[in-house]
Amino acid sequence: MEGLAPSSKLSLTVVVVVLLLGMAGAANGLKRVVANSPDEPCKNMTLYYHDILYNGNNTANATTAAATKPTPLSTTYWKNSTYFGALMVFNDPMTVGKALPLAGEEPAARAQGFYFYDKQESLTSWFGFSIVFNSTAHKGTLNLVGADLMGDATRDFSVVGGTGDFFMARGVATIRTDAIEGLYYFRLQMDIKLYECYL
Amino acid sequence: MEGLAPSSKLSLTVVVVVLLLGMAGAANGLKRVVANSPDEPCKNMTLYYHDILYNGNNTANATTAAATKPTPLSTTYWKNSTYFGALMVFNDPMTVGKALPLAGEEPAARAQGFYFYDKQESLTSWFGFSIVFNSTAHKGTLNLVGADLMGDATRDFSVVGGTGDFFMARGVATIRTDAIEGLYYFRLQMDIKLYECYL
Amino acid sequence: MEGLAPSSKLSLTVVVVVLLLGMAGAANGLKRVVANSPDEPCKNMTLYYHDILYNGNNTANATTAAATKPTPLSTTYWKNSTYFGALMVFNDPMTVGKALPLAGEEPAARAQGFYFYDKQESLTSWFGFSIVFNSTAHKGTLNLVGADLMGDATRDFSVVGGTGDFFMARGVATIRTDAIEGLYYFRLQMDIKLYECYL
Repeated sequence: MEGLAPSSKLSLTVVVVVLLLGMAGAANGLKRVVANSPDEPCKNMTLYYHDILYNGNNTANATTAAATKPTPLSTTYWKNSTYFGALMVFNDPMTVGKALPLAGEEPAARAQGFYFYDKQESLTSWFGFSIVFNSTAHKGTLNLVGADLMGDATRDFSVVGGTGDFFMARGVATIRTDAIEGLYYFRLQMDIKLYECYL
Repeated sequence: MEGLAPSSKLSLTVVVVVLLLGMAGAANGLKRVVANSPDEPCKNMTLYYHDILYNGNNTANATTAAATKPTPLSTTYWKNSTYFGALMVFNDPMTVGKALPLAGEEPAARAQGFYFYDKQESLTSWFGFSIVFNSTAHKGTLNLVGADLMGDATRDFSVVGGTGDFFMARGVATIRTDAIEGLYYFRLQMDIKLYECYL
Repeated sequence: MEGLAPSSKLSLTVVVVVLLLGMAGAANGLKRVVANSPDEPCKNMTLYYHDILYNGNNTANATTAAATKPTPLSTTYWKNSTYFGALMVFNDPMTVGKALPLAGEEPAARAQGFYFYDKQESLTSWFGFSIVFNSTAHKGTLNLVGADLMGDATRDFSVVGGTGDFFMARGVATIRTDAIEGLYYFRLQMDIKLYECYL
């Protein structure tokens, strides 16, 4: 940096440039924030996803149901319980703690979407869904897609968009199977980290 | 800011930095633009989405059809017309005005994708689709996903990507039910606002 | 630029600002890179997608199967082989060269997801899937959605997110039909260009 103007002046210039860029668009109080690295999400939350499959008798409680009947290949693989091609539609409660919402209690959010099984030898599935927030804490949605490689201890979905309080969000949701109870209930822990936000 | 070099010099520096950053990548005439706030989309359009359901007799006109047959849970809920789990595939005309395209007239775009119903008590659905433009005005696609919470006056989908004239676009599409005619036709107004563009 | 401080000082300032911005977040060795123009992807690769449809007898080899049975409208259109509404679920090998993986050989990646046909007069379809990498070269996923307008020589999907080695990626994948063998095999060339990366 020899020959440059005094470095104190230079760093002041840098600071001011950054401040000015940071303030652009702040008129409505919201401003775009983009993480520079995976270590610095601009927003962070953990929610539990409860999937209660329809078993023929639990109409009042079921939150997920098969939308397709078994087809020839799925039937072939159904034998070893990999359900190839089975499409499930869900409207599942999401909670801050591990417990299901009490009767009459609103969950923190609802996950609305679908998954289907897509592996012959072992269980993998693919998800597309929205996390719909409609509480005093948050209003809006996060939209996610991704592969659920159930054999892995953790796996990642992409948060591909957001609306309302989560306007234009992007990020990654890390999934962990937290509980499986028989054939008709499982719970996923979702650690959601946003790396693009308007705050 | 006392002790700083004359502020006129400083603000000129800022301006030049911004100009130089703004010009980077302008070789092919396209340059990335990102909105600083929700109030300043880089692109804006309103289109009407026409959904004409297959009713058994309208093969020539139908643009949407059920891809799945009712399954046990959906049948249970079908009674109160919430169609839980029904998957619909569509290839719908989109128009600038509210009228359907005249015979032989090309629509402004086509919406190609799917939705399915996912709520037991009331109607909600989930959409994944592309808006395909193939006109003199626009060539390319916008890709959208999101929850359609039909009980709300407006609801938002995420524009998660774009191609061609909409290269790498992101944004939000606000949906309004504009008309419902019996069981076999509905029209949505979509106000599409892009916040990331290459212009 | 008359009246400005000496331009050599100015451009040094600009360089330093850019360097400082570029280094932000480099603590974990990863740093966000965004292409300024469509000509400068931050990452680039070509992979071949192999789709082997279940034909009733190829359980061991099939990688794709119909998840839905023909419904009334699809049957109407099935006559002219447009398969309106047919939903296919796949778990397809992806390779660097055109050949299928040898017996026992791991493919470069697997494409896990679905497509369905959505046009009456000619073939178009819509895809949602993940490219799952699990090799020494790459671990992670790319998530894609988009319309496959099969009548066009090339068509584009959006890369809407990524995880692992492809953390927060966005881009465009250009598709070309590379081979069709009878009714039960087709191969797509996918030229994947990422325009947002953490490198």
